Amino acid sequence: MGRVTTRTSSPRTRLSPAQRRAQLLDLGVRLLSTRSLDELSIDVLAEEAGISRGLLYHYFGNKHDFHEAVVRRAADDLIEQTAPPVEGEPLHRLLVSMTAYLDYVDQNHAGYLSLVKAASGGNDTLREIYEEARAALTDRVFREDAQGQIIKETPQTRLLVRAWAAFAEDLVLGWKADPRGVTHDEVLTMLVGSLPALVGVLVPEP
Amino acid sequence: MGRVTTRTSSPRTRLSPAQRRAQLLDLGVRLLSTRSLDELSIDVLAEEAGISRGLLYHYFGNKHDFHEAVVRRAADDLIEQTAPPVEGEPLHRLLVSMTAYLDYVDQNHAGYLSLVKAASGGNDTLREIYEEARAALTDRVFREDAQGQIIKETPQTRLLVRAWAAFAEDLVLGWKADPRGVTHDEVLTMLVGSLPALVGVLVPEP
Repeated sequence: MGRVTTRTSSPRTRLSPAQRRAQLLDLGVRLLSTRSLDELSIDVLAEEAGISRGLLYHYFGNKHDFHEAVVRRAADDLIEQTAPPVEGEPLHRLLVSMTAYLDYVDQNHAGYLSLVKAASGGNDTLREIYEEARAALTDRVFREDAQGQIIKETPQTRLLVRAWAAFAEDLVLGWKADPRGVTHDEVLTMLVGSLPALVGVLVPEP
Repeated sequence: MGRVTTRTSSPRTRLSPAQRRAQLLDLGVRLLSTRSLDELSIDVLAEEAGISRGLLYHYFGNKHDFHEAVVRRAADDLIEQTAPPVEGEPLHRLLVSMTAYLDYVDQNHAGYLSLVKAASGGNDTLREIYEEARAALTDRVFREDAQGQIIKETPQTRLLVRAWAAFAEDLVLGWKADPRGVTHDEVLTMLVGSLPALVGVLVPEP
């Protein structure tokens, strides 16, 4: 296999196949930010990367595997980018994490929407990736708050936090679909305030 | 067209075509409570109703139209069954409505799940019916609370109530999928308490 450069690599360097594949996945995720999964074909990626379709098939097998790899990378990116800081008060860390979540959906709207839609569609693998990402995000709420300062882990709170993730997703996507009359900061206030408020339903203030 | 009786009609009466169609739709919705939309074929309905497939096609055109009619009926049933009482305190009416919602999903789990799944799948008509039902449910929050005792209608609260509906749906379906350790009444407490708690995020208590 000869040396391949994509438009996005600079300066020209010889990459390992694994690095090249990772680079192509990054490009796929970037392309997904402005188009749906259906619109992201091997052809589009080949065109954007400036390499042949044949080589892409070499890296990704077929269209289905390509989509799966891109969605998995997008889910990993989401989890990574919304990671709260290691230090700080739980509520502050929640604020940082939710700010990053809002930014992520803001900047990757089409891609995020297609992840959510793919998850509910017929494809089991994509649904699984989505469920894993969501579980990672909700598990983190408990892991990051191991002392239970905001929320203690119980069957009730697990259910609640999972449903809160659905709330957050719908809130942000609803705002992106029709932002009229609602500011970015107001959405952020709702995102951050909603979790403690919902926990308060289970543990009423004295 | 001759006289037709279904197993569900008793005593034998001559129904108008519209009445017969409505009766078959009722049967379709009942069948949907224990099977997914994919499993609800014209064959199954014909078998259960004790009439010919040909006659069902006469009433419903094709499988797609049949599914659309059943889902629309199921959505109408959901809206109707969860209607809050006309009189009473807003929070009490919310409690009655949420109790009915929980009961509905409890008793029609497979059907409700297939409505939610169909909405996210590729079928535009089914998604539209789902969106209409959800809009009807959230609009009602404002209509039933015209004085804004719980919640005033603003762009922010519209977004919040819509996202709350996603929370409620995920909470109930999550509980149905894995009810271990969480009682019916605890789910109801979360359903009823969540809306005022979320509104409180926008309008902090003095």
